[in-house]
Amino acid sequence: MTTETMLKTHPSAGANTADLAAVIDDVLACMQACLSCADACLHEDMVADLRQCIRTDQDCADICEATLRVLSRQGSTDTNILASLLSACVAACAACAAECESHSDMHEHCRACAEACRRCESSCRRMLEDLG
Amino acid sequence: MTTETMLKTHPSAGANTADLAAVIDDVLACMQACLSCADACLHEDMVADLRQCIRTDQDCADICEATLRVLSRQGSTDTNILASLLSACVAACAACAAECESHSDMHEHCRACAEACRRCESSCRRMLEDLG
Amino acid sequence: MTTETMLKTHPSAGANTADLAAVIDDVLACMQACLSCADACLHEDMVADLRQCIRTDQDCADICEATLRVLSRQGSTDTNILASLLSACVAACAACAAECESHSDMHEHCRACAEACRRCESSCRRMLEDLG
Amino acid sequence: MTTETMLKTHPSAGANTADLAAVIDDVLACMQACLSCADACLHEDMVADLRQCIRTDQDCADICEATLRVLSRQGSTDTNILASLLSACVAACAACAAECESHSDMHEHCRACAEACRRCESSCRRMLEDLG
Repeated sequence: MTTETMLKTHPSAGANTADLAAVIDDVLACMQACLSCADACLHEDMVADLRQCIRTDQDCADICEATLRVLSRQGSTDTNILASLLSACVAACAACAAECESHSDMHEHCRACAEACRRCESSCRRMLEDLG
Repeated sequence: MTTETMLKTHPSAGANTADLAAVIDDVLACMQACLSCADACLHEDMVADLRQCIRTDQDCADICEATLRVLSRQGSTDTNILASLLSACVAACAACAAECESHSDMHEHCRACAEACRRCESSCRRMLEDLG
Repeated sequence: MTTETMLKTHPSAGANTADLAAVIDDVLACMQACLSCADACLHEDMVADLRQCIRTDQDCADICEATLRVLSRQGSTDTNILASLLSACVAACAACAAECESHSDMHEHCRACAEACRRCESSCRRMLEDLG
Repeated sequence: MTTETMLKTHPSAGANTADLAAVIDDVLACMQACLSCADACLHEDMVADLRQCIRTDQDCADICEATLRVLSRQGSTDTNILASLLSACVAACAACAAECESHSDMHEHCRACAEACRRCESSCRRMLEDLG
Protein backbone atom coordinates (compact mmCIF):
# COMPACT_ATOMS: atom_id res chain seq x y z
CA MET A 1 0.00 0.00 0.00
CA THR A 2 2.84 2.41 0.82
CA THR A 3 4.47 1.66 -2.54
CA GLU A 4 1.35 2.52 -4.52
CA THR A 5 0.81 5.72 -2.50
CA MET A 6 4.38 6.77 -3.24
CA LEU A 7 4.05 6.05 -6.96
CA LYS A 8 0.74 7.76 -7.58
CA THR A 9 1.80 11.01 -5.87
CA HIS A 10 4.82 11.39 -8.21
CA PRO A 11 4.43 14.43 -10.53
CA SER A 12 5.20 12.20 -13.56
CA ALA A 13 2.99 9.29 -12.42
CA GLY A 14 1.60 7.23 -15.29
CA ALA A 15 -1.75 5.47 -15.57
CA ASN A 16 -0.36 2.15 -14.36
CA THR A 17 0.87 2.91 -10.85
CA ALA A 18 -0.99 -0.08 -9.35
CA ASP A 19 0.77 -2.44 -11.79
CA LEU A 20 4.16 -0.83 -11.22
CA ALA A 21 3.68 -0.96 -7.43
CA ALA A 22 2.92 -4.69 -7.67
CA VAL A 23 6.16 -5.29 -9.61
CA ILE A 24 8.19 -3.25 -7.12
CA ASP A 25 6.67 -5.15 -4.18
CA ASP A 26 7.60 -8.46 -5.85
CA VAL A 27 11.17 -7.21 -6.37
CA LEU A 28 11.40 -6.08 -2.73
CA ALA A 29 10.12 -9.44 -1.45
CA CYS A 30 12.51 -11.34 -3.73
CA MET A 31 15.49 -9.26 -2.66
CA GLN A 32 14.72 -9.87 1.02
CA ALA A 33 14.11 -13.60 0.46
CA CYS A 34 17.44 -14.00 -1.36
CA LEU A 35 19.36 -12.16 1.38
CA SER A 36 17.76 -14.38 4.03
CA CYS A 37 18.21 -17.58 2.04
CA ALA A 38 21.92 -16.91 1.42
CA ASP A 39 22.52 -16.46 5.15
CA ALA A 40 20.34 -19.46 6.06
CA CYS A 41 22.29 -21.68 3.62
CA LEU A 42 25.58 -20.39 5.08
CA HIS A 43 24.49 -21.60 8.52
CA GLU A 44 23.28 -25.05 7.45
CA ASP A 45 25.51 -27.99 8.44
CA MET A 46 25.92 -28.89 4.78
CA VAL A 47 27.12 -25.39 3.81
CA ALA A 48 29.87 -26.85 1.60
CA ASP A 49 27.17 -28.30 -0.69
CA LEU A 50 25.24 -25.03 -0.83
CA ARG A 51 27.87 -22.72 -2.32
CA GLN A 52 26.10 -22.50 -5.68
CA CYS A 53 22.82 -21.63 -3.94
CA ILE A 54 24.46 -18.94 -1.78
CA ARG A 55 26.12 -17.44 -4.82
CA THR A 56 22.92 -17.37 -6.88
CA ASP A 57 20.96 -15.91 -3.94
CA GLN A 58 23.51 -13.12 -3.58
CA ASP A 59 23.58 -12.28 -7.29
CA CYS A 60 19.78 -12.26 -7.41
CA ALA A 61 19.54 -9.98 -4.34
CA ASP A 62 22.02 -7.51 -5.86
CA ILE A 63 20.29 -7.39 -9.24
CA CYS A 64 16.89 -7.03 -7.53
CA GLU A 65 18.29 -4.09 -5.55
CA ALA A 66 19.38 -2.28 -8.73
CA THR A 67 15.98 -3.09 -10.31
CA LEU A 68 14.13 -1.73 -7.29
CA ARG A 69 16.09 1.51 -7.40
CA VAL A 70 15.56 2.02 -11.13
CA LEU A 71 11.85 1.09 -11.06
CA SER A 72 11.20 3.45 -8.15
CA ARG A 73 12.16 6.39 -10.39
CA GLN A 74 9.23 7.39 -12.58
CA GLY A 75 10.59 10.55 -14.19
CA SER A 76 13.06 10.85 -17.13
CA THR A 77 13.13 7.08 -17.75
CA ASP A 78 15.49 5.62 -20.39
CA THR A 79 13.55 2.63 -21.79
CA ASN A 80 16.71 1.00 -23.09
CA ILE A 81 18.34 0.86 -19.65
CA LEU A 82 15.11 -0.33 -18.07
CA ALA A 83 14.65 -3.16 -20.59
CA SER A 84 18.21 -4.45 -20.23
CA LEU A 85 17.99 -4.39 -16.44
CA LEU A 86 14.63 -6.19 -16.41
CA SER A 87 16.19 -8.88 -18.64
CA ALA A 88 19.03 -9.31 -16.16
CA CYS A 89 16.54 -9.51 -13.29
CA VAL A 90 14.47 -12.16 -15.12
CA ALA A 91 17.65 -14.21 -15.74
CA ALA A 92 18.82 -13.92 -12.12
CA CYS A 93 15.40 -14.82 -10.68
CA ALA A 94 14.98 -17.79 -13.02
CA ALA A 95 18.45 -19.15 -12.16
CA CYS A 96 17.99 -18.63 -8.42
CA ALA A 97 14.52 -20.22 -8.46
CA ALA A 98 15.84 -23.27 -10.35
CA GLU A 99 18.76 -23.67 -7.93
CA CYS A 100 16.57 -23.30 -4.83
CA GLU A 101 13.92 -25.66 -6.22
CA SER A 102 16.56 -28.36 -6.71
CA HIS A 103 16.86 -28.76 -2.92
CA SER A 104 13.64 -27.22 -1.64
CA ASP A 105 12.57 -30.56 -0.15
CA MET A 106 15.49 -30.28 2.28
CA HIS A 107 15.36 -26.59 3.14
CA GLU A 108 12.18 -24.68 3.83
CA HIS A 109 14.00 -21.36 3.20
CA CYS A 110 14.95 -22.51 -0.31
CA ARG A 111 11.33 -23.44 -1.02
CA ALA A 112 10.06 -20.03 0.12
CA CYS A 113 12.88 -18.22 -1.69
CA ALA A 114 12.12 -20.08 -4.94
CA GLU A 115 8.50 -18.92 -4.72
CA ALA A 116 9.54 -15.29 -4.23
CA CYS A 117 11.95 -15.59 -7.19
CA ARG A 118 9.27 -17.08 -9.46
CA ARG A 119 6.83 -14.26 -8.61
CA CYS A 120 9.49 -11.63 -9.29
CA GLU A 121 10.62 -13.33 -12.51
CA SER A 122 7.05 -13.42 -13.78
CA SER A 123 6.32 -9.78 -12.85
CA CYS A 124 9.52 -8.50 -14.46
CA ARG A 125 8.94 -10.58 -17.61
CA ARG A 126 5.43 -9.19 -17.99
CA MET A 127 6.70 -5.64 -17.55
CA LEU A 128 9.47 -6.29 -20.06
CA GLU A 129 6.91 -7.54 -22.62
CA ASP A 130 4.75 -4.47 -22.01
CA LEU A 131 7.72 -2.22 -22.85
CA GLY A 132 7.34 -3.59 -26.39
CA MET B 1 4.39 -12.63 5.36
CA THR B 2 7.24 -13.69 3.05
CA THR B 3 9.74 -11.97 5.36
CA GLU B 4 8.57 -13.85 8.44
CA THR B 5 8.58 -17.17 6.56
CA MET B 6 12.15 -16.53 5.47
CA LEU B 7 13.29 -15.61 8.98
CA LYS B 8 11.71 -18.50 10.85
CA THR B 9 13.15 -21.15 8.50
CA HIS B 10 16.73 -19.94 9.15
CA PRO B 11 18.78 -22.58 11.05
CA SER B 12 19.82 -19.92 13.62
CA ALA B 13 16.34 -18.37 13.94
CA GLY B 14 15.70 -16.81 17.34
CA ALA B 15 12.45 -16.59 19.29
CA ASN B 16 11.58 -13.17 17.97
CA THR B 17 11.24 -13.73 14.21
CA ALA B 18 7.85 -11.98 14.07
CA ASP B 19 9.32 -8.84 15.67
CA LEU B 20 12.41 -8.91 13.44
CA ALA B 21 10.24 -9.41 10.35
CA ALA B 22 8.18 -6.36 11.30
CA VAL B 23 11.34 -4.23 11.60
CA ILE B 24 12.66 -5.49 8.24
CA ASP B 25 9.33 -4.73 6.55
CA ASP B 26 9.41 -1.18 7.96
CA VAL B 27 12.97 -0.74 6.66
CA LEU B 28 11.96 -2.06 3.21
CA ALA B 29 8.96 0.28 3.03
CA CYS B 30 11.06 3.26 4.17
CA MET B 31 13.78 2.54 1.62
CA GLN B 32 11.23 2.36 -1.21
CA ALA B 33 9.43 5.51 -0.02
CA CYS B 34 12.70 7.49 0.11
CA LEU B 35 13.73 6.34 -3.39
CA SER B 36 10.32 7.38 -4.75
CA CYS B 37 10.23 10.66 -2.85
CA ALA B 38 13.70 11.69 -4.08
CA ASP B 39 12.65 11.15 -7.68
CA ALA B 40 9.26 12.82 -7.17
CA CYS B 41 10.95 15.91 -5.67
CA LEU B 42 13.40 15.97 -8.60
CA HIS B 43 10.47 16.24 -11.00
CA GLU B 44 8.55 18.95 -9.14
CA ASP B 45 8.59 22.43 -10.71
CA MET B 46 10.21 23.81 -7.57
CA VAL B 47 13.07 21.28 -7.64
CA ALA B 48 15.61 24.01 -6.79
CA ASP B 49 13.92 24.40 -3.37
CA LEU B 50 13.88 20.64 -2.74
CA ARG B 51 17.59 19.86 -2.86
CA GLN B 52 17.84 19.27 0.87
CA CYS B 53 14.86 16.89 0.76
CA ILE B 54 16.28 14.94 -2.20
CA ARG B 55 19.62 14.64 -0.44
CA THR B 56 18.08 13.44 2.85
CA ASP B 57 15.83 10.98 0.98
CA GLN B 58 18.84 9.50 -0.80
CA ASP B 59 20.95 9.19 2.35
CA CYS B 60 18.04 7.57 4.19
CA ALA B 61 17.41 5.08 1.35
CA ASP B 62 21.09 4.08 1.28
CA ILE B 63 21.33 3.61 5.05
CA CYS B 64 18.06 1.65 5.04
CA GLU B 65 19.49 -0.60 2.34
CA ALA B 66 22.55 -1.43 4.45
CA THR B 67 20.29 -1.96 7.48
CA LEU B 68 18.03 -4.31 5.51
CA ARG B 69 21.00 -6.37 4.37
CA VAL B 70 22.50 -6.65 7.85
CA LEU B 71 19.16 -7.40 9.59
CA SER B 72 18.32 -10.12 7.06
CA ARG B 73 21.35 -12.08 8.27
CA GLN B 74 20.48 -14.00 11.45
CA GLY B 75 23.62 -16.09 11.89
CA SER B 76 27.01 -14.98 13.33
CA THR B 77 25.77 -11.49 14.25
CA ASP B 78 28.20 -8.90 15.67
CA THR B 79 26.05 -6.87 18.11
CA ASN B 80 28.42 -3.93 18.00
CA ILE B 81 28.06 -3.49 14.23
CA LEU B 82 24.30 -3.98 14.45
CA ALA B 83 23.90 -1.35 17.18
CA SER B 84 25.98 1.29 15.38
CA LEU B 85 24.10 0.72 12.12
CA LEU B 86 20.69 0.91 13.82
CA SER B 87 21.79 4.22 15.38
CA ALA B 88 22.69 5.55 11.94
CA CYS B 89 19.35 4.36 10.57
CA VAL B 90 17.44 6.07 13.40
CA ALA B 91 19.35 9.33 12.73
CA ALA B 92 18.72 9.16 8.96
CA CYS B 93 15.01 8.36 9.35
CA ALA B 94 14.50 11.13 11.94
CA ALA B 95 16.24 13.71 9.74
CA CYS B 96 14.39 12.64 6.60
CA ALA B 97 11.02 12.61 8.38
CA ALA B 98 11.62 16.12 9.79
CA GLU B 99 12.63 17.45 6.37
CA CYS B 100 9.66 15.86 4.58
CA GLU B 101 7.22 16.99 7.27
CA SER B 102 8.36 20.60 6.79
CA HIS B 103 6.69 20.69 3.35
CA SER B 104 4.25 17.79 3.52
CA ASP B 105 1.32 20.19 3.05
CA MET B 106 2.60 20.92 -0.46
CA HIS B 107 3.69 17.43 -1.55
CA GLU B 108 1.69 14.30 -0.91
CA HIS B 109 4.82 12.15 -1.55
CA CYS B 110 6.67 13.97 1.24
CA ARG B 111 3.77 13.35 3.61
CA ALA B 112 3.70 9.61 2.83
CA CYS B 113 7.50 9.39 2.94
CA ALA B 114 7.61 11.08 6.36
CA GLU B 115 5.17 8.49 7.69
CA ALA B 116 7.30 5.61 6.39
CA CYS B 117 10.40 7.22 7.93
CA ARG B 118 8.71 7.68 11.33
CA ARG B 119 7.60 4.02 11.38
CA CYS B 120 11.12 2.86 10.49
CA GLU B 121 12.74 5.22 13.00
CA SER B 122 10.49 3.92 15.77
CA SER B 123 11.05 0.23 14.86
CA CYS B 124 14.83 0.62 14.69
CA ARG B 125 14.94 2.60 17.95
CA ARG B 126 12.95 -0.11 19.75
CA MET B 127 15.24 -2.81 18.40
CA LEU B 128 18.29 -0.79 19.43
CA GLU B 129 16.92 -0.46 22.98
CA ASP B 130 16.25 -4.21 23.11
CA LEU B 131 19.91 -4.87 22.25
CA GLY B 132 20.63 -3.35 25.67
CA MET C 1 46.44 -3.03 -6.76
CA THR C 2 44.25 -4.07 -3.81
CA THR C 3 41.64 -5.43 -6.21
CA GLU C 4 44.13 -7.66 -8.02
CA THR C 5 45.58 -8.91 -4.71
CA MET C 6 42.08 -9.83 -3.54
CA LEU C 7 41.23 -11.64 -6.76
CA LYS C 8 44.39 -13.70 -7.10
CA THR C 9 44.21 -15.01 -3.51
CA HIS C 10 40.71 -16.45 -4.07
CA PRO C 11 40.72 -20.29 -3.97
CA SER C 12 38.87 -20.41 -7.32
CA ALA C 13 40.99 -17.68 -8.98
CA GLY C 14 41.26 -18.06 -12.74
CA ALA C 15 44.18 -17.23 -15.02
CA ASN C 16 42.87 -13.77 -15.84
CA THR C 17 42.80 -12.02 -12.47
CA ALA C 18 44.66 -8.97 -13.81
CA ASP C 19 42.04 -8.51 -16.55
CA LEU C 20 39.16 -9.02 -14.14
CA ALA C 21 40.70 -6.59 -11.63
CA ALA C 22 40.95 -3.95 -14.37
CA VAL C 23 37.24 -4.37 -15.21
CA ILE C 24 36.25 -4.16 -11.54
CA ASP C 25 38.34 -1.00 -11.06
CA ASP C 26 36.63 0.60 -14.07
CA VAL C 27 33.22 -0.32 -12.63
CA LEU C 28 34.18 1.13 -9.23
CA ALA C 29 35.40 4.39 -10.79
CA CYS C 30 32.26 4.67 -12.95
CA MET C 31 29.97 4.06 -9.98
CA GLN C 32 31.71 6.76 -7.95
CA ALA C 33 31.72 9.22 -10.88
CA CYS C 34 27.98 8.74 -11.47
CA LEU C 35 27.15 9.25 -7.78
CA SER C 36 29.21 12.46 -7.75
CA CYS C 37 27.86 13.71 -11.06
CA ALA C 38 24.22 13.20 -10.00
CA ASP C 39 24.78 15.27 -6.86
CA ALA C 40 26.80 17.91 -8.72
CA CYS C 41 23.99 18.29 -11.32
CA LEU C 42 21.44 18.57 -8.50
CA HIS C 43 23.34 21.55 -7.11
CA GLU C 44 23.81 23.41 -10.40
CA ASP C 45 21.67 26.55 -10.89
CA MET C 46 20.12 24.96 -13.99
CA VAL C 47 19.07 21.79 -12.13
CA ALA C 48 15.66 21.81 -13.83
CA ASP C 49 17.40 21.18 -17.18
CA LEU C 50 19.55 18.39 -15.77
CA ARG C 51 16.85 15.95 -14.63
CA GLN C 52 17.59 13.48 -17.42
CA CYS C 53 21.31 13.54 -16.57
CA ILE C 54 20.67 13.02 -12.85
CA ARG C 55 18.35 10.12 -13.61
CA THR C 56 20.81 8.42 -15.98
CA ASP C 57 23.68 8.95 -13.52
CA GLN C 58 21.66 7.30 -10.76
CA ASP C 59 20.60 4.33 -12.88
CA CYS C 60 24.19 3.83 -14.06
CA ALA C 61 25.55 3.98 -10.48
CA ASP C 62 23.02 1.39 -9.30
CA ILE C 63 23.69 -1.02 -12.16
CA CYS C 64 27.46 -0.58 -11.68
CA GLU C 65 27.01 -1.45 -8.02
CA ALA C 66 25.25 -4.72 -8.84
CA THR C 67 27.93 -5.45 -11.46
CA LEU C 68 30.72 -4.79 -8.96
CA ARG C 69 29.16 -7.15 -6.45
CA VAL C 70 28.63 -9.96 -8.97
CA LEU C 71 32.09 -9.58 -10.58
CA SER C 72 33.81 -9.63 -7.18
CA ARG C 73 32.54 -13.20 -6.67
CA GLN C 74 34.81 -15.66 -8.47
CA GLY C 75 33.39 -18.95 -7.23
CA SER C 76 30.21 -20.78 -8.45
CA THR C 77 29.55 -18.26 -11.24
CA ASP C 78 26.39 -18.55 -13.39
CA THR C 79 27.50 -17.33 -16.84
CA ASN C 80 23.94 -16.57 -17.89
CA ILE C 81 23.38 -14.12 -15.02
CA LEU C 82 26.81 -12.55 -15.57
CA ALA C 83 26.20 -12.02 -19.30
CA SER C 84 22.78 -10.41 -18.82
CA LEU C 85 24.10 -8.10 -16.12
CA LEU C 86 27.11 -7.06 -18.21
CA SER C 87 24.70 -6.23 -21.06
CA ALA C 88 22.67 -4.03 -18.70
CA CYS C 89 25.86 -2.33 -17.50
CA VAL C 90 27.00 -1.67 -21.09
CA ALA C 91 23.57 -0.15 -21.89
CA ALA C 92 23.56 2.04 -18.77
CA CYS C 93 27.13 3.27 -19.29
CA ALA C 94 26.51 4.04 -22.98
CA ALA C 95 23.33 5.98 -22.20
CA CYS C 96 24.92 7.90 -19.32
CA ALA C 97 28.03 8.73 -21.35
CA ALA C 98 25.90 10.02 -24.25
CA GLU C 99 23.79 12.16 -21.92
CA CYS C 100 26.82 13.60 -20.08
CA GLU C 101 28.68 14.26 -23.35
CA SER C 102 25.73 16.31 -24.63
CA HIS C 103 26.50 19.05 -22.07
CA SER C 104 30.11 18.32 -21.12
CA ASP C 105 31.19 21.73 -22.46
CA MET C 106 29.16 23.36 -19.69
CA HIS C 107 29.93 21.04 -16.77
CA GLU C 108 33.36 19.67 -15.99
CA HIS C 109 31.79 16.90 -13.83
CA CYS C 110 29.75 15.67 -16.80
CA ARG C 111 32.89 15.57 -18.96
CA ALA C 112 34.80 13.51 -16.36
CA CYS C 113 31.78 11.29 -15.71
CA ALA C 114 31.35 10.59 -19.43
CA GLU C 115 34.98 9.44 -19.61
CA ALA C 116 34.52 7.08 -16.66
CA CYS C 117 31.34 5.70 -18.27
CA ARG C 118 33.07 5.12 -21.64
CA ARG C 119 35.95 3.24 -19.96
CA CYS C 120 33.49 1.08 -18.02
CA GLU C 121 31.30 0.47 -21.08
CA SER C 122 34.31 -0.63 -23.08
CA SER C 123 35.67 -2.93 -20.32
CA CYS C 124 32.29 -4.60 -19.76
CA ARG C 125 31.69 -5.03 -23.51
CA ARG C 126 35.09 -6.72 -23.91
CA MET C 127 34.38 -9.04 -21.00
CA LEU C 128 30.95 -9.84 -22.41
CA GLU C 129 32.50 -10.74 -25.78
CA ASP C 130 35.07 -12.97 -24.04
CA LEU C 131 32.24 -14.91 -22.36
CA GLY C 132 31.42 -16.07 -25.91
CA MET D 1 42.49 10.51 -9.60
CA THR D 2 38.99 10.18 -11.08
CA THR D 3 37.47 10.58 -7.60
CA GLU D 4 39.29 13.84 -6.90
CA THR D 5 38.38 15.22 -10.35
CA MET D 6 34.72 14.43 -9.68
CA LEU D 7 34.75 16.04 -6.25
CA LYS D 8 36.50 19.27 -7.17
CA THR D 9 34.17 20.00 -10.12
CA HIS D 10 31.08 19.86 -7.85
CA PRO D 11 29.39 23.30 -7.56
CA SER D 12 29.45 22.99 -3.73
CA ALA D 13 33.02 21.63 -3.54
CA GLY D 14 34.78 22.50 -0.27
CA ALA D 15 38.45 23.22 0.30
CA ASN D 16 39.27 19.65 1.26
CA THR D 17 38.44 17.68 -1.89
CA ALA D 18 41.81 15.88 -1.89
CA ASP D 19 41.20 14.63 1.67
CA LEU D 20 37.63 13.61 0.92
CA ALA D 21 38.73 11.81 -2.25
CA ALA D 22 41.30 9.85 -0.25
CA VAL D 23 38.60 8.73 2.23
CA ILE D 24 36.24 7.72 -0.59
CA ASP D 25 38.99 5.73 -2.30
CA ASP D 26 39.70 3.89 0.97
CA VAL D 27 35.98 3.11 1.36
CA LEU D 28 35.80 1.84 -2.25
CA ALA D 29 38.85 -0.40 -1.78
CA CYS D 30 37.51 -1.75 1.53
CA MET D 31 34.10 -2.51 0.02
CA GLN D 32 35.68 -4.42 -2.85
CA ALA D 33 38.07 -6.29 -0.55
CA CYS D 34 35.21 -7.39 1.74
CA LEU D 35 33.09 -8.60 -1.19
CA SER D 36 36.05 -10.61 -2.52
CA CYS D 37 37.03 -11.96 0.90
CA ALA D 38 33.49 -13.15 1.67
CA ASP D 39 33.38 -15.11 -1.58
CA ALA D 40 36.93 -16.43 -1.14
CA CYS D 41 36.09 -17.68 2.38
CA LEU D 42 32.92 -19.31 1.03
CA HIS D 43 35.04 -21.34 -1.40
CA GLU D 44 37.69 -22.45 1.11
CA ASP D 45 37.56 -26.13 2.18
CA MET D 46 37.08 -25.03 5.77
CA VAL D 47 34.07 -22.83 4.96
CA ALA D 48 32.19 -24.11 8.03
CA ASP D 49 34.83 -22.44 10.24
CA LEU D 50 34.66 -19.15 8.33
CA ARG D 51 31.01 -18.24 8.82
CA GLN D 52 31.81 -15.40 11.23
CA CYS D 53 34.35 -13.97 8.78
CA ILE D 54 31.93 -14.18 5.83
CA ARG D 55 29.24 -12.48 7.88
CA THR D 56 31.52 -9.65 9.03
CA ASP D 57 32.87 -9.18 5.49
CA GLN D 58 29.32 -8.84 4.15
CA ASP D 59 28.20 -6.39 6.83
CA CYS D 60 31.33 -4.31 6.29
CA ALA D 61 30.84 -4.25 2.50
CA ASP D 62 27.21 -3.13 2.89
CA ILE D 63 28.02 -0.37 5.37
CA CYS D 64 30.94 0.79 3.18
CA GLU D 65 28.54 0.97 0.24
CA ALA D 66 26.16 3.26 2.13
CA THR D 67 29.14 5.34 3.30
CA LEU D 68 30.46 5.65 -0.25
CA ARG D 69 27.08 6.84 -1.50
CA VAL D 70 26.64 9.41 1.26
CA LEU D 71 30.23 10.72 1.07
CA SER D 72 30.00 11.13 -2.71
CA ARG D 73 27.27 13.75 -2.21
CA GLN D 74 28.81 17.14 -1.37
CA GLY D 75 25.74 19.36 -1.48
CA SER D 76 23.04 19.78 1.26
CA THR D 77 24.87 17.54 3.75
CA ASP D 78 23.26 16.69 7.12
CA THR D 79 26.24 16.44 9.52
CA ASN D 80 24.26 14.36 11.99
CA ILE D 81 23.55 11.60 9.45
CA LEU D 82 27.13 11.71 8.21
CA ALA D 83 28.60 11.37 11.71
CA SER D 84 26.38 8.43 12.69
CA LEU D 85 27.15 6.62 9.44
CA LEU D 86 30.90 7.19 9.79
CA SER D 87 30.67 5.73 13.32
CA ALA D 88 28.96 2.64 11.94
CA CYS D 89 31.61 2.33 9.24
CA VAL D 90 34.42 2.60 11.79
CA ALA D 91 32.76 -0.13 13.91
CA ALA D 92 32.25 -2.44 10.93
CA CYS D 93 35.80 -1.98 9.62
CA ALA D 94 37.33 -2.52 13.07
CA ALA D 95 35.31 -5.71 13.63
CA CYS D 96 36.04 -7.07 10.15
CA ALA D 97 39.77 -6.29 10.44
CA ALA D 98 39.98 -8.03 13.84
CA GLU D 99 38.15 -11.09 12.51
CA CYS D 100 40.29 -11.32 9.35
CA GLU D 101 43.51 -10.76 11.31
CA SER D 102 42.68 -13.71 13.56
CA HIS D 103 43.28 -16.13 10.65
CA SER D 104 45.34 -14.05 8.25
CA ASP D 105 48.25 -16.48 8.54
CA MET D 106 46.09 -19.13 6.85
CA HIS D 107 44.37 -17.03 4.19
CA GLU D 108 46.11 -14.43 2.10
CA HIS D 109 42.71 -12.85 1.19
CA CYS D 110 41.97 -12.28 4.88
CA ARG D 111 45.36 -10.63 5.36
CA ALA D 112 44.79 -8.26 2.42
CA CYS D 113 41.19 -7.60 3.47
CA ALA D 114 42.25 -6.75 7.03
CA GLU D 115 44.70 -4.16 5.64
CA ALA D 116 41.98 -2.55 3.51
CA CYS D 117 39.65 -2.48 6.54
CA ARG D 118 42.29 -0.87 8.77
CA ARG D 119 42.98 1.86 6.18
CA CYS D 120 39.24 2.56 5.84
CA GLU D 121 38.68 2.51 9.60
CA SER D 122 41.49 5.00 10.11
CA SER D 123 40.29 7.33 7.30
CA CYS D 124 36.70 7.33 8.53
CA ARG D 125 37.76 7.89 12.14
CA ARG D 126 39.89 10.89 11.16
CA MET D 127 37.02 12.36 9.14
CA LEU D 128 34.64 11.77 12.05
CA GLU D 129 37.01 13.61 14.41
CA ASP D 130 37.27 16.51 11.95
CA LEU D 131 33.47 16.86 11.96
CA GLY D 132 33.93 18.00 15.59
